[in-house]
Amino acid sequence: MKNYFSIKDIDSIENWVNEAIELKKNPLANKTLGTDKTIGLLFFNPSLRTRLSTQKAATNLGMNVIVMNFTGEGWSLEYDDGAVMDQGTSEHVKEAAQVVSQYCDVLAIRAFAKLKNREDDYNEKVLQSFIKYATIPVINMESATGHPLQALTDAITIIEHKKKNKPKVVLSWAPHPKALPQAVANSFVEMMQRMEADFVITHPVGYELASEITKGVSIDYNQKNAFKDADFIYVKNWSSYEDYGKVSEDKSWKITEEKMKQTNNAKFMHCLPVRRNVVVDDAVLDKENSIVIEQANNRTYAAQLVLKKILESK
Amino acid sequence: MKNYFSIKDIDSIENWVNEAIELKKNPLANKTLGTDKTIGLLFFNPSLRTRLSTQKAATNLGMNVIVMNFTGEGWSLEYDDGAVMDQGTSEHVKEAAQVVSQYCDVLAIRAFAKLKNREDDYNEKVLQSFIKYATIPVINMESATGHPLQALTDAITIIEHKKKNKPKVVLSWAPHPKALPQAVANSFVEMMQRMEADFVITHPVGYELASEITKGVSIDYNQKNAFKDADFIYVKNWSSYEDYGKVSEDKSWKITEEKMKQTNNAKFMHCLPVRRNVVVDDAVLDKENSIVIEQANNRTYAAQLVLKKILESK
Amino acid sequence: MKNYFSIKDIDSIENWVNEAIELKKNPLANKTLGTDKTIGLLFFNPSLRTRLSTQKAATNLGMNVIVMNFTGEGWSLEYDDGAVMDQGTSEHVKEAAQVVSQYCDVLAIRAFAKLKNREDDYNEKVLQSFIKYATIPVINMESATGHPLQALTDAITIIEHKKKNKPKVVLSWAPHPKALPQAVANSFVEMMQRMEADFVITHPVGYELASEITKGVSIDYNQKNAFKDADFIYVKNWSSYEDYGKVSEDKSWKITEEKMKQTNNAKFMHCLPVRRNVVVDDAVLDKENSIVIEQANNRTYAAQLVLKKILESK
Repeated sequence: MKNYFSIKDIDSIENWVNEAIELKKNPLANKTLGTDKTIGLLFFNPSLRTRLSTQKAATNLGMNVIVMNFTGEGWSLEYDDGAVMDQGTSEHVKEAAQVVSQYCDVLAIRAFAKLKNREDDYNEKVLQSFIKYATIPVINMESATGHPLQALTDAITIIEHKKKNKPKVVLSWAPHPKALPQAVANSFVEMMQRMEADFVITHPVGYELASEITKGVSIDYNQKNAFKDADFIYVKNWSSYEDYGKVSEDKSWKITEEKMKQTNNAKFMHCLPVRRNVVVDDAVLDKENSIVIEQANNRTYAAQLVLKKILESK
Repeated sequence: MKNYFSIKDIDSIENWVNEAIELKKNPLANKTLGTDKTIGLLFFNPSLRTRLSTQKAATNLGMNVIVMNFTGEGWSLEYDDGAVMDQGTSEHVKEAAQVVSQYCDVLAIRAFAKLKNREDDYNEKVLQSFIKYATIPVINMESATGHPLQALTDAITIIEHKKKNKPKVVLSWAPHPKALPQAVANSFVEMMQRMEADFVITHPVGYELASEITKGVSIDYNQKNAFKDADFIYVKNWSSYEDYGKVSEDKSWKITEEKMKQTNNAKFMHCLPVRRNVVVDDAVLDKENSIVIEQANNRTYAAQLVLKKILESK
Repeated sequence: MKNYFSIKDIDSIENWVNEAIELKKNPLANKTLGTDKTIGLLFFNPSLRTRLSTQKAATNLGMNVIVMNFTGEGWSLEYDDGAVMDQGTSEHVKEAAQVVSQYCDVLAIRAFAKLKNREDDYNEKVLQSFIKYATIPVINMESATGHPLQALTDAITIIEHKKKNKPKVVLSWAPHPKALPQAVANSFVEMMQRMEADFVITHPVGYELASEITKGVSIDYNQKNAFKDADFIYVKNWSSYEDYGKVSEDKSWKITEEKMKQTNNAKFMHCLPVRRNVVVDDAVLDKENSIVIEQANNRTYAAQLVLKKILESK
């Protein structure tokens, strides 16, 4: 494996999840695999879980870690071919990616959707430019349209907690005051299509994800109906794909204890950070059925597995 | 020992100081104690000494260090129970503290007083929330009302330099153009009450520290009088506790060579950073009796001792 | 060797370049030289190559690395002796440099020219203050007037690529929309005067570098003429020294394929970051004669050599 850009880079979900669960039992088993190897973590956006869990994962493998915030610490980058760079950008990604490749052995990059121009975001200009020009493997730490480390984490967590072969998994939209990307939802949908699951997405009209991604997936505009008999409720806000970046704060979609009662005693999942009492009530998050903290813990093993695969295939 | 929140967490000042002085002689004696352990340093405010000395201390013990600036790099945190998070905060400390606890073995946190609301500050919302929700030990790298790593450093420094069993130690207020917290002064007062010292606080009327902290301590509103026969002059500005956050730039309280001459050839101490010629004259800082640089050096050994105690008790 | 402030600290360019080329062949040959030694990287300005390559170099030698951004993470520093610090600065470099010296074994500092006051910049207030007060070696990671790690890199790169004993090397000014320091150009000029090279500087009238630096060097105001038979074209923008900080965007000085054709199939060099199609055309940068990426790679070995020299002489 060279890059981990999307979950398409996973050959077998089942094998990967099993291997990650093994890693979790003994995180230091491969402590010398990364000796004298350096990972560069490049951030264009804030991060807590991703930053810390990836750093932890790399350290568990014995790697050196260099963290770099491009906002503030570095130069602003240009991505357009042929640009006459007489404005705000100081360095072209062509140089930046090639240069950084010489100081590191693996790159991991976070660059959120800007939610201004759908085509720009869905072309994945930042990540794809780094992948194009870097001469070392590139890992997606959440790009404009996907968050495959989160999706791998989610697969691990569901498999750890499921009580039947084909659980009912519901991805529910929930309200949020700010425009958020579709990245987490997109990757989760892709992942669910590759797992044994009775999968349903529920969201308000107008909040459909990109149809290429949801093709063949059940969509139910009635949240109450969708929740029935669910084994896992996975909650996430996203802004509109159709009316790109449009926000809805429709409070009737908030996740409540009442709604959770409609499920089959479902586990509650969320990638975090989560806005309490806006996206979901305290009563849900603070109940034992919420597995958001364990889910976050699995971020380390998802990242560690990806790094291990990359180091082993070099 | 679980947390190091205040100097109340020190069982014996004498033993701790002696142990720190031993560490200083051979800082790498416990080089493998922290192998495969990670400390997360979380900063909500600027730092130079604390950041570098704690990082050095952890490295001396063989720990991995993750530094995270919450301002800019992370999400803004909510601390209120039951808050409807539809405004500026993106993540509740409940999640943040639990999540970070899974990636680290020890947390160290800096969160200054905001000096807006005395009750909020003296309730230590940030540090106490992290302590409440974290599942790993938490170290105070200066909270709203205390700076116990500094106070331990100060105890080490005084014991290293004292020439009599019970030296006269004076904590003197000095002017400063900005509103500063009472944290350093508070912890120093607490420490002096547990050491063999003839301890006096001197400050202008209206700049009394919290009475629960200074109970039983001599306060002299006459700086000149207080300085007489002093063996240590410990200088620090703080804003008013009574008229919470009020600043005084009363220049008559600046520390001068003339004033130092009233002392028993006293050592001059300050936690740094110090504004030269505002808080204290160049003539005092640049004289050999100033031990502020050695004092800063002891920050490493104070932090290292606290980390060692925590690692040993796990 | 104590400090690496300018290329004057290099005793023999030839020996250093040869040694760096050896290091490049086996970067981990001295992997334990820096065991238990810590380098502090202090940044007052953005950095990509310098930050990452110096971090990599230190890691190759087994050192611990502490990175600190003074903008944002730390206190703003005062450099003037006798200053009454009642304004924006919180800490004097006297304290900062002495204190940091106690936590680290080597310091490396980046502090660009401010381009407001030529005397201030050419007095090298920041770097020279750190050198004055630090008690450990200080490395210049680009100061107001020089970038000696870059110049050492450039020497390595030219020696690796030259095909004759005394190549013709041209330093050409090129347009840029913002005021840039003279640091890179200055150090390159100093380096060329110590190497076997037929060296020419070309720039518009009014863009002369400091005469103390260019004394004895050929200056040709005709770029086309200067490029004739050149073996290396080294391109860099700088703002005016005479009319201090003045910018010129004179597009006739942009480096084009046409101009490169006048040379002896010259290699194209630039320290990066470079503004494409403003400083130089895509056609030049994307041709095989451009060695800017290899040049950036040599930053690691220049930094590693300097660190090795410092560690060996302690």
